[in-house]
Amino acid sequence: MATEEIMDKTTSLAKRRGFIYQGSEIYGGLAGTWDYGPLGLALKKNIENLWWRIFVDSREDMYGLDSAILMNPRVWEASGHVGGFSDPLVECKKCQKRWRADHLENKAKCPDCSGTLGVEKQFNMMFKTSVGSVDGTDTAVYLRPETAQGMFVNFKNIIDSFHPRLPFGLAQIGRNFRNEIAPRDFIFRVRELEIMELEYFIKERDWEEKFEYWLEEMRRWFRALGFDDADIKEVAIPDGERAHYSKRTVDFHFHYPHKFDEIAGLAYRTDFDLKNHIETSGADLSYLDPATGEKLIPHVLEPTFGLGRHVLAVMTKAYAEDELGGETRVVMKFPAHLAPVKAAVFPLLKNKPELVARAREIFGVLKKTIPQIMWDDNGNIGKRYRRQDEIGTPYCITIDFNTLATDTVTVRDRDTGEQERVAVSELLKFLKF
Amino acid sequence: MATEEIMDKTTSLAKRRGFIYQGSEIYGGLAGTWDYGPLGLALKKNIENLWWRIFVDSREDMYGLDSAILMNPRVWEASGHVGGFSDPLVECKKCQKRWRADHLENKAKCPDCSGTLGVEKQFNMMFKTSVGSVDGTDTAVYLRPETAQGMFVNFKNIIDSFHPRLPFGLAQIGRNFRNEIAPRDFIFRVRELEIMELEYFIKERDWEEKFEYWLEEMRRWFRALGFDDADIKEVAIPDGERAHYSKRTVDFHFHYPHKFDEIAGLAYRTDFDLKNHIETSGADLSYLDPATGEKLIPHVLEPTFGLGRHVLAVMTKAYAEDELGGETRVVMKFPAHLAPVKAAVFPLLKNKPELVARAREIFGVLKKTIPQIMWDDNGNIGKRYRRQDEIGTPYCITIDFNTLATDTVTVRDRDTGEQERVAVSELLKFLKF
Repeated sequence: MATEEIMDKTTSLAKRRGFIYQGSEIYGGLAGTWDYGPLGLALKKNIENLWWRIFVDSREDMYGLDSAILMNPRVWEASGHVGGFSDPLVECKKCQKRWRADHLENKAKCPDCSGTLGVEKQFNMMFKTSVGSVDGTDTAVYLRPETAQGMFVNFKNIIDSFHPRLPFGLAQIGRNFRNEIAPRDFIFRVRELEIMELEYFIKERDWEEKFEYWLEEMRRWFRALGFDDADIKEVAIPDGERAHYSKRTVDFHFHYPHKFDEIAGLAYRTDFDLKNHIETSGADLSYLDPATGEKLIPHVLEPTFGLGRHVLAVMTKAYAEDELGGETRVVMKFPAHLAPVKAAVFPLLKNKPELVARAREIFGVLKKTIPQIMWDDNGNIGKRYRRQDEIGTPYCITIDFNTLATDTVTVRDRDTGEQERVAVSELLKFLKF
Repeated sequence: MATEEIMDKTTSLAKRRGFIYQGSEIYGGLAGTWDYGPLGLALKKNIENLWWRIFVDSREDMYGLDSAILMNPRVWEASGHVGGFSDPLVECKKCQKRWRADHLENKAKCPDCSGTLGVEKQFNMMFKTSVGSVDGTDTAVYLRPETAQGMFVNFKNIIDSFHPRLPFGLAQIGRNFRNEIAPRDFIFRVRELEIMELEYFIKERDWEEKFEYWLEEMRRWFRALGFDDADIKEVAIPDGERAHYSKRTVDFHFHYPHKFDEIAGLAYRTDFDLKNHIETSGADLSYLDPATGEKLIPHVLEPTFGLGRHVLAVMTKAYAEDELGGETRVVMKFPAHLAPVKAAVFPLLKNKPELVARAREIFGVLKKTIPQIMWDDNGNIGKRYRRQDEIGTPYCITIDFNTLATDTVTVRDRDTGEQERVAVSELLKFLKF
């Protein structure tokens, strides 16, 4: 199977099986928006929860945050977004189509109609809206394009409430909005995106050492997702190409079907953000070192992870077509701990009440411990296996006549197709995720 | 303590101890936006997760969804929001201040400057923004004011992917935006709000029975949060006051410090939404009954829960000032399963390495099972108890010299202040939440 086919096949499976639907689909959609169905949401939650567990709950130096999407517009002046968060666009004078200037080979002619292109203009990617107020004036506000600033503006709050010592970090998972002129590649480039992000505050002198530390933590994260070394490429962003605030950036590229492209990044933002917020707001965002009495502005390392891009990476990596028992099948080879459905429970025959009743009991007990479990009694067992393979369910558990006699069930492995008889009392121990 | 004081005291504690901060605070805020700090986020997550467990994971008739905030604008034409989602406003001709016309006693005069008020105008509460596109035209889009429509437009997708039988429901927790002219009462009336919502599809003839069923499920939910009967009042909304789409609505009011006010609601939306989407989009949103072959448009019951309002309810109900051992204290009496910090671990003295080392070991073991656990070695034990009481930690575990000899620890109960010696090996069993 050609790798470029995998994107289309994943997109189609995502819709067919209830992972991800086009946003507002019955109205012809709204470009760059996607809706997560039950299975996509479960997969996304599994990734989020794993991230939170590893980077927040299992550490003592991280403080979770959930800041508002609408912020005081001065935040975006301080951050440089009002002036600088833009794409260079050119418009065709003949057909009015807009193009990203930096994506064009010939900047004089429209690739579509060969019309003359106008002058390059900066197109700000922030969505603007307006907040009404009782005093009769409306304030222009933006939908946040990143979660980072929500953490910087709360730096002082965290210091005041928790008195943390350097180094420490803030963590946030949240939705962001970017007015992409040309959303593309399924959920890769979208207008509404979720980011999992850390702002890790350090002393300036420690930045190189801590940068290496976070590179290594990020590599461990990708291994925790089941990615191989071949899936990930680290790309150091050279001088002149980094964002204005960054002194060193390493992007992590994942081997998507369309190409190696960004999934996460680590940036050393220096003290750029805190300094600008001090200047613009007048607030004191310094840190008082309790050991030395020194007052300093912490520097910042920022590990960022695109949540939708993680979902896309996990799904396209899992997509496979193989042969099992002489039949071709589509199978999502999700790592078991990420699979949206961990196990499916089948009564062998749905018209045998005693089988159904026993299957129901077993299902009920398992569901208490494993919420991500599914009941399926539709069609023959072969069909049910195919259906579960397509959504990547690691285990299928069949209750048959033997179960009634010996209190054992058949557990079928998704990847090998092998079946094993397991005592009902041993089931929870047997299933691994 | 007067109940009206509790709102101010909760707001102040929320900021001081890291539950909830004013949004964009260092810039003077942005009215109606709030940022959740580490403890508020943990509390909010505990409520969300409990809701999802009860209403989605422990059921087989619910399908989770996470739809986009930006939707095709025709969605809001079909739903009636473009025409009807508005507040009546009047503007003072002298001082230009705006007022909610329906909140005024004298509709002729400005309550502030006594100037003459202008004519009443409808002020649409949807935030409007604009999406750029390559063809040179911009499309006006809205920030969704409710999660419901994201579920209705995906009705067909869920039918196609999962073939559910009536009755079944869609579930979503998500952020919504309402351009409130006068946000107020801390996190009660805000511009950016999270809603936990179900759309439950039924046959028309079943609506009365299922309405009663959902009333009862909602009552069970409030009991699961630890609310008493006295905390909740059910308010049937009479004819003429219900939303245009509803044939019966019961609001649940919680006894907030400012007054009894809405926390959740149950509405019978009939087939209003699906019908309008069929008309406006042309899509076939009917349901084919596999038993009878009948094609029908399902009717809808909608249990809705304001997430921020739940956080406010749980916090204001928990807030208490009492006397313990002759000292006055502030204590958040959270039900243990909702508390943002379940237990705190203290070494009796921080300058005794052997105590600190043993406390660290115990902390490490507990944290693997109980992520919401805190380490505290700052100040004397009495101060640590007060600090933990203020954030509502149900258990404080002290490692003292006796621990080194007998492998037991002191567990102190938040509400009674009583201390009990518990064997380290029994700790996980002893702590209840």
